[in-house]
Amino acid sequence: MLDLTSCLEGLSKTRRYLVGVSGGRDSVCLLDILIRSGFKKLVVVHVNHRLRGRAASGDATFTKRLADSYHLDFEKTEVDTKAYAKSMKLSVETAARNLRYEFFSVKAKKLRCSRILLAHHADDQVETVFMNLCRGSGTAGLGGMKTETTIGNLTVYRPLLNVWRTEIDAYISEHGLKFREDASNANDEHVRNRVRNELIPALPKVFGRDPREAILRAAQLCREDAAFLEMVVDGLYKVALTKSGGLRFAKVESTEPSGLKRRLIQRWLSENEVPDCGFAEAERVLTLMDIENGPAKVNLPGDWHARRRAGSLFLEPPARG
Amino acid sequence: MLDLTSCLEGLSKTRRYLVGVSGGRDSVCLLDILIRSGFKKLVVVHVNHRLRGRAASGDATFTKRLADSYHLDFEKTEVDTKAYAKSMKLSVETAARNLRYEFFSVKAKKLRCSRILLAHHADDQVETVFMNLCRGSGTAGLGGMKTETTIGNLTVYRPLLNVWRTEIDAYISEHGLKFREDASNANDEHVRNRVRNELIPALPKVFGRDPREAILRAAQLCREDAAFLEMVVDGLYKVALTKSGGLRFAKVESTEPSGLKRRLIQRWLSENEVPDCGFAEAERVLTLMDIENGPAKVNLPGDWHARRRAGSLFLEPPARG
Repeated sequence: MLDLTSCLEGLSKTRRYLVGVSGGRDSVCLLDILIRSGFKKLVVVHVNHRLRGRAASGDATFTKRLADSYHLDFEKTEVDTKAYAKSMKLSVETAARNLRYEFFSVKAKKLRCSRILLAHHADDQVETVFMNLCRGSGTAGLGGMKTETTIGNLTVYRPLLNVWRTEIDAYISEHGLKFREDASNANDEHVRNRVRNELIPALPKVFGRDPREAILRAAQLCREDAAFLEMVVDGLYKVALTKSGGLRFAKVESTEPSGLKRRLIQRWLSENEVPDCGFAEAERVLTLMDIENGPAKVNLPGDWHARRRAGSLFLEPPARG
Repeated sequence: MLDLTSCLEGLSKTRRYLVGVSGGRDSVCLLDILIRSGFKKLVVVHVNHRLRGRAASGDATFTKRLADSYHLDFEKTEVDTKAYAKSMKLSVETAARNLRYEFFSVKAKKLRCSRILLAHHADDQVETVFMNLCRGSGTAGLGGMKTETTIGNLTVYRPLLNVWRTEIDAYISEHGLKFREDASNANDEHVRNRVRNELIPALPKVFGRDPREAILRAAQLCREDAAFLEMVVDGLYKVALTKSGGLRFAKVESTEPSGLKRRLIQRWLSENEVPDCGFAEAERVLTLMDIENGPAKVNLPGDWHARRRAGSLFLEPPARG
């Protein structure tokens, strides 16, 4: 019998966890492994994204019954993903994720349980790495998802992140588990599905071997490097931050590599909750550090501004109307 | 007229350079840009890899005439790439590269000119990044090729690394330059050609846009991070190295991230010229640092061994027969 329990190493059976369960094979497998391993204090959380019509309410019913069969608490919500995506100008995938984490976060507060287990697996990870590469992410993005990470007030665990889809399939079939088939996976409307159904399957022919294990290793190397770089930036940030919340860039060696400076700026913008700041915004703020040729002021999203004054950078929040 | 001369920024017109010219469109374009920009002290170097039958000697003749037309010195060699690949158990691509750099290196010594210009362009870079991802490279590999790097005694410059193939084509056609068509580019026997002819062209449909610019940016971010990490490892290496050439791992904080420790080990193995040491070998040597559970000796390629003794790691070269 295929034993996947080792993926739960480091998690405590006596603690309480939320478990994200869609009713699909991955989360059904995760839930079964947890139960067989003796985890008892689990709360099954389920989001109906209203993306699958009638099938979606069937998923909710199925997941509720599954939770019942394991004598677990069950919490669900229903959201209008498409409307939210449209109003926020987000892709459906990003909108669905935002809404999901929002619900998890609310439940975490209500139930006083900030730990959540999600069923992302190794094939999801390979897809994520490809998608991040093709959107121009650096080391952190190429590292893909983390087995343990903090998102808002949630601590997210992904125990299946090194388990392949084929292993999950084998587990499901060996244990005769029932699950809901997600027809939307075959729908090539979404980038992730096209990466899954077209790009990844084409790789073995191109490379003469299946490169997925290698991609997973590349991602792990990137995650390690990104973690170290974040640690270095922590130190830089503490040194450079002024009492008034500015950034004393004279403290940041001009020889410091631009990757670090950009991370420093990104940290500063994100700590100040300047919205929608990515690579391009950090790059523009970086030009402020160039006293000779750089501008003295840079416009940022949401009517924020960054300014240079006497060897420091300052942020100006939007004027309240 | 398309002006690509800005790619030569930072290079000195009064210095002497070798220029690798195959006779193909990329290197013909590079050579023309150099001449038009006033570079005069150039030596055209050409390698016949004997991979293209009669066409190959035509390439050599063409390149010789091209050099003559610009009044430049010309140096060529002919190598049996397939035989070398077979005897060294290398892919033909790797064998060809090794032989090429070997020739460049010999010429550099003979002509007392260690600087060489190569015509790799942005599309080559995107291919390299994909190939490195699919062979499990970390941050350095995902950074792809460098615009300036040291290989043995050579300083290699790649001025076209941010120029797209389509720009080179446009330049070639605008200036009416003649070049040799490389039929082997269409040959899908080699991984790189399949990446070029099948994988990359499929990406726009998968992602709904052409992701090549984004991939180039991802690579740049990785190169910056890799350069910084190498700098950090330089410092660690100096601290950890013992007078007898061992590695005092007690000096390496146990909290130091594993990515750094692995780089440290890789640096140590490469400084000692232990052959064929990659990720897996460094990982195995790393286990020596675990006093409690690790082994005390690790076998390495070429009959080398690494040992742990009194808080340090030592290398034992192969016994001479």
